[in-house]
Amino acid sequence: MLSFASDYLEGAHESILQRLAASNLDQVSGYGTDPFCASAREKIRQACAQPKADVRFLAGGTQTNQIVISALLARHEGVIAPESGHISTHEAGAIEYTGHKVLTLPQQEGKISAEAVDRYMESFYADRNHEHMVHPGMVSLAWPSEYGTLYSRVELEALSRVCRKHRLPLFLDGARLGYGLACPAADLDMADIARLADVFTIGGTKCGALCGEAVVFPKGDAPRHFTTLIKQQGGLLAKGRLLGIQFDALFTDGLYERLGGHAIAMADRLRALFTDKGYTFFLASPTNQIFLVLENEQMNRLAKEVAFSFWEQVDETHSVVRFATSWATKPESIERLAAIL
Amino acid sequence: MLSFASDYLEGAHESILQRLAASNLDQVSGYGTDPFCASAREKIRQACAQPKADVRFLAGGTQTNQIVISALLARHEGVIAPESGHISTHEAGAIEYTGHKVLTLPQQEGKISAEAVDRYMESFYADRNHEHMVHPGMVSLAWPSEYGTLYSRVELEALSRVCRKHRLPLFLDGARLGYGLACPAADLDMADIARLADVFTIGGTKCGALCGEAVVFPKGDAPRHFTTLIKQQGGLLAKGRLLGIQFDALFTDGLYERLGGHAIAMADRLRALFTDKGYTFFLASPTNQIFLVLENEQMNRLAKEVAFSFWEQVDETHSVVRFATSWATKPESIERLAAIL
Amino acid sequence: MLSFASDYLEGAHESILQRLAASNLDQVSGYGTDPFCASAREKIRQACAQPKADVRFLAGGTQTNQIVISALLARHEGVIAPESGHISTHEAGAIEYTGHKVLTLPQQEGKISAEAVDRYMESFYADRNHEHMVHPGMVSLAWPSEYGTLYSRVELEALSRVCRKHRLPLFLDGARLGYGLACPAADLDMADIARLADVFTIGGTKCGALCGEAVVFPKGDAPRHFTTLIKQQGGLLAKGRLLGIQFDALFTDGLYERLGGHAIAMADRLRALFTDKGYTFFLASPTNQIFLVLENEQMNRLAKEVAFSFWEQVDETHSVVRFATSWATKPESIERLAAIL
Amino acid sequence: MLSFASDYLEGAHESILQRLAASNLDQVSGYGTDPFCASAREKIRQACAQPKADVRFLAGGTQTNQIVISALLARHEGVIAPESGHISTHEAGAIEYTGHKVLTLPQQEGKISAEAVDRYMESFYADRNHEHMVHPGMVSLAWPSEYGTLYSRVELEALSRVCRKHRLPLFLDGARLGYGLACPAADLDMADIARLADVFTIGGTKCGALCGEAVVFPKGDAPRHFTTLIKQQGGLLAKGRLLGIQFDALFTDGLYERLGGHAIAMADRLRALFTDKGYTFFLASPTNQIFLVLENEQMNRLAKEVAFSFWEQVDETHSVVRFATSWATKPESIERLAAIL
Repeated sequence: MLSFASDYLEGAHESILQRLAASNLDQVSGYGTDPFCASAREKIRQACAQPKADVRFLAGGTQTNQIVISALLARHEGVIAPESGHISTHEAGAIEYTGHKVLTLPQQEGKISAEAVDRYMESFYADRNHEHMVHPGMVSLAWPSEYGTLYSRVELEALSRVCRKHRLPLFLDGARLGYGLACPAADLDMADIARLADVFTIGGTKCGALCGEAVVFPKGDAPRHFTTLIKQQGGLLAKGRLLGIQFDALFTDGLYERLGGHAIAMADRLRALFTDKGYTFFLASPTNQIFLVLENEQMNRLAKEVAFSFWEQVDETHSVVRFATSWATKPESIERLAAIL
Repeated sequence: MLSFASDYLEGAHESILQRLAASNLDQVSGYGTDPFCASAREKIRQACAQPKADVRFLAGGTQTNQIVISALLARHEGVIAPESGHISTHEAGAIEYTGHKVLTLPQQEGKISAEAVDRYMESFYADRNHEHMVHPGMVSLAWPSEYGTLYSRVELEALSRVCRKHRLPLFLDGARLGYGLACPAADLDMADIARLADVFTIGGTKCGALCGEAVVFPKGDAPRHFTTLIKQQGGLLAKGRLLGIQFDALFTDGLYERLGGHAIAMADRLRALFTDKGYTFFLASPTNQIFLVLENEQMNRLAKEVAFSFWEQVDETHSVVRFATSWATKPESIERLAAIL
Repeated sequence: MLSFASDYLEGAHESILQRLAASNLDQVSGYGTDPFCASAREKIRQACAQPKADVRFLAGGTQTNQIVISALLARHEGVIAPESGHISTHEAGAIEYTGHKVLTLPQQEGKISAEAVDRYMESFYADRNHEHMVHPGMVSLAWPSEYGTLYSRVELEALSRVCRKHRLPLFLDGARLGYGLACPAADLDMADIARLADVFTIGGTKCGALCGEAVVFPKGDAPRHFTTLIKQQGGLLAKGRLLGIQFDALFTDGLYERLGGHAIAMADRLRALFTDKGYTFFLASPTNQIFLVLENEQMNRLAKEVAFSFWEQVDETHSVVRFATSWATKPESIERLAAIL
Repeated sequence: MLSFASDYLEGAHESILQRLAASNLDQVSGYGTDPFCASAREKIRQACAQPKADVRFLAGGTQTNQIVISALLARHEGVIAPESGHISTHEAGAIEYTGHKVLTLPQQEGKISAEAVDRYMESFYADRNHEHMVHPGMVSLAWPSEYGTLYSRVELEALSRVCRKHRLPLFLDGARLGYGLACPAADLDMADIARLADVFTIGGTKCGALCGEAVVFPKGDAPRHFTTLIKQQGGLLAKGRLLGIQFDALFTDGLYERLGGHAIAMADRLRALFTDKGYTFFLASPTNQIFLVLENEQMNRLAKEVAFSFWEQVDETHSVVRFATSWATKPESIERLAAIL
């Protein structure tokens, strides 16, 4: 069946498969010390214009959030995040499992503001009981957010400033980074992000790879003994080459940009289609995720012909659903959907 | 200085000190296996009309919440609590430290409703992604609440019913239980609480003891190997007698009731005084904690003559403050305050 | 340089790469719910003659040990393992990170005996202080062991009996399972292991895959909410297909057996070569890992021409080193080594 | 029945009870901010000749070990301890519960040597795989040890030197410190210990108090946000006065020394008695714990008339038992025992 259910429906871009095959019998060392990882690291350093960046590769998104956040927080600290953040809602308590509270702030279209973070910090320190409270220790946000929206340059600069004012590391979860960067609406590039965030990730799983997230510490200041910490949380792959080869491919000849661009082009066509047909958008998201409000009856009817994601209930008779495009979305799929609608 | 800052300003009721002295050189076994603990257990079983109840003694309130909650939850579960609950706000992340999320519901006067819990559970199971979410595994509420309010019999029965419907153990934190039970406004006694809750605590620290909370599993179903779990979290006192003697004293000749009654009588006088003087109550709390809204200037002036607790800011010029009475509040202190006001 | 440094030097068997390519654009659901995982599960059920087995796929070995062990243990329990066990020595405290102690028993050639486990259990329960001790909650052993040795049928049956007597789940870590099964010296097949262990793993990473371990609960009794537990520890891959496809390939047309057989044939040649040349074996291991005792000078000289692993120091002038073969070892590599020696 | 079963059979020295009574209605602030704690801190600073020492009070021994060790270790670190250490054997895995491994070294009479620690550290860093191993992060030892033995000045100075060489904080668990200091055989005083250890505890529970351990950071370098860390682990008593008053009493007019002296005088008489009667000592312990080897039959006969502790089995027919004296042991108890023997 035709499907826009998610952006991880297919395998990997064929360049990745080709590289895996071409390098297959090369004998290399394990745990990320191989030349493929080294090459991928170097290309990422260039892509984000940070020659000293420390780059690590992990297999999955929740794993990455868990490992990065628990490594950056002191034991008495929690992580500030939007209440709609993935770490707060859909990671089965992976952050709390490591002993840390997610300190949620109200979200607007999936985002939090610099002002809200600043107010939270001011009122935390003003509270005479703050020794008995979880100390805010970092800020985590997703770019694009879980609602497919983007922080603008102004917004992210303000967040970065507030974080530095309060000595909070700013972590930008880029599980769908490629789809944000490729948006015409985005006024940030990877170098901007590397400049404004203290650590960010470059999503592979949803942007063309079989698996993998690159974790970038732009200033080269990964937590001490980070390899041991990763091992301790079960995140160190023996065949680190699997991740290195994939990211090396993604950062060769602009592949990552092209894959992002394709998904956004497809999403734009989808948005045009829904607009044409008079559908109601839940919010204006410029990236590869499109959120619609449907009557439940309409939703159920549509679900017989095309796969999409149920997102949340609006009221007794309406629901929010999500259509996602990806690097692998075919133009003919859009046409088939047009015919269905 | 005259102080209504908290209900743990003094030591212990003199009966407790006398018993400690009288039994001081008796040689007894450790870790709660002594005859004083046994006697206290039996008296508590009678007081709550649950002959099979399993009763344990712990030293402090946060420790008790941490030990009880982490012992009752499965690893993938979190605890439902009001957003104003002590475990959510002022225990330095003690619950998250044990790996569990506090799942907060909006509070009204410090309380949550059965309907809100039911809705939460229904929508959790309706969510197609709930395998990726923290499973709600129990409900924790305080009686009296952190705002000094009380769940009525009707409210607690409804909560108990909803919890049983969804197989959620209901934990009632009674750090100030004595002050709730002694309220004329309370329509619940200890036997009711033992019938409606799956586990509850009888606060000693704030109700006449030097330290100590009794944890009661009315049906006798403490978690398996609970002693080992308590030891593992550092909560097993070698000289368990210190807790047993105190609770034995509190539950002899109705002392616990009398201490509660005194604090409430003092609080009622305080409430009458504030009403007379035209003060604004933040909310109507019938127990030993009284919350007032003061202008900041007035607050600062008053703070020079009497100690009380700053609670929270209302707006730029107003604050909420708390006055607390206790088993040890002297009538002349009320009179001195009347003179000051 | 010629290398026998480990069994994870290359990528994957070409059948796996072909399958990844062939299925690449099939759209499937995530998190292990795809048809490739379903097919692989069914083939594994057949291979171990356990039609009800519950089979899960995880990315790495330490991750697998951490997830399986922490899911099976109650909070107050630890895991019994040989002091030389990987979980005890080389997983950066991954088990302790989840809150559990590794209870080590002395090893003989990397193995522990049923008698030693039985004695440990008897003396644990005989100890009057055992409420203050970590309770033994399961047994974990590797087959082949970290020293390449194998428990015989008699040994494993005895261990299984003792574990059932004491209600200890028996976990067999099969990171190199294929290399054990292929040994002429092995008197156990996969059906035997499935019958004797309560949970075991089928190693992919070291036996022909890019990554991946299959976790098998032969009786179908995976821990409740296991998917949520895996997610909570960051082990749930979005594109579960990556693991399903690989295991489906490994369990098609006897590939897993063939790969194991090749590695053992190569190891046997290596053993013959070392014997011929008069080398001293540290112990007699029948699998793909060969441990030699070398003079340090000889070790350093050899290390200039061929890569192998330093294992441990014997004394001031001697060391133990490891040579490993794998599914990918080429016969000409053995010949080159012969020339060097 | 006559009992030498432990050193926590009675309540507290009467000076403590008197002080609790005398101060009972003084209104003071909570959580260790009261004047009694302040006074006790100052007296302890003087007693250990460290005017900048940071002193905290906790309720119990396991709690103290858990809180101190988990606060000092980085996440990837473990604590070096003798295999017979209390944290390794009889604290129900309290250290592992906080995520840290106990790295055990073989013990001689309950002690480890500086050489053993040095060798461990050297071989850890020499191991090429140490990134995959638990990093040793501190040393914990008890003075007196669990076998009642004492590190000499030479031994402790050597340990201190090795710890400083390897940047390992040295933690000295003084649950029975008073009984060590009072030994004629001890060649260390509290100032020596404060000089040689990075953190040590002064046991109250076993040395005259109802409960309580003082944690001393001689150089004033308690972990950052230590109060919050204590709260997070449930160790912060609301009525901190309970601990402050007791330690203030213990450190007034040399009470702590006198209580220690009494216990040692009684133990010396007991040792003389056992020697006279031809009993076999398990080892030579100069403090308040005496370990004897008894035939099981003899042990069972004796157990009918006097209480003592079973310690461990020697062989099928012999056991080790422990007799303990304390601050509260009466001379007539020794005489009664003499009559029995």
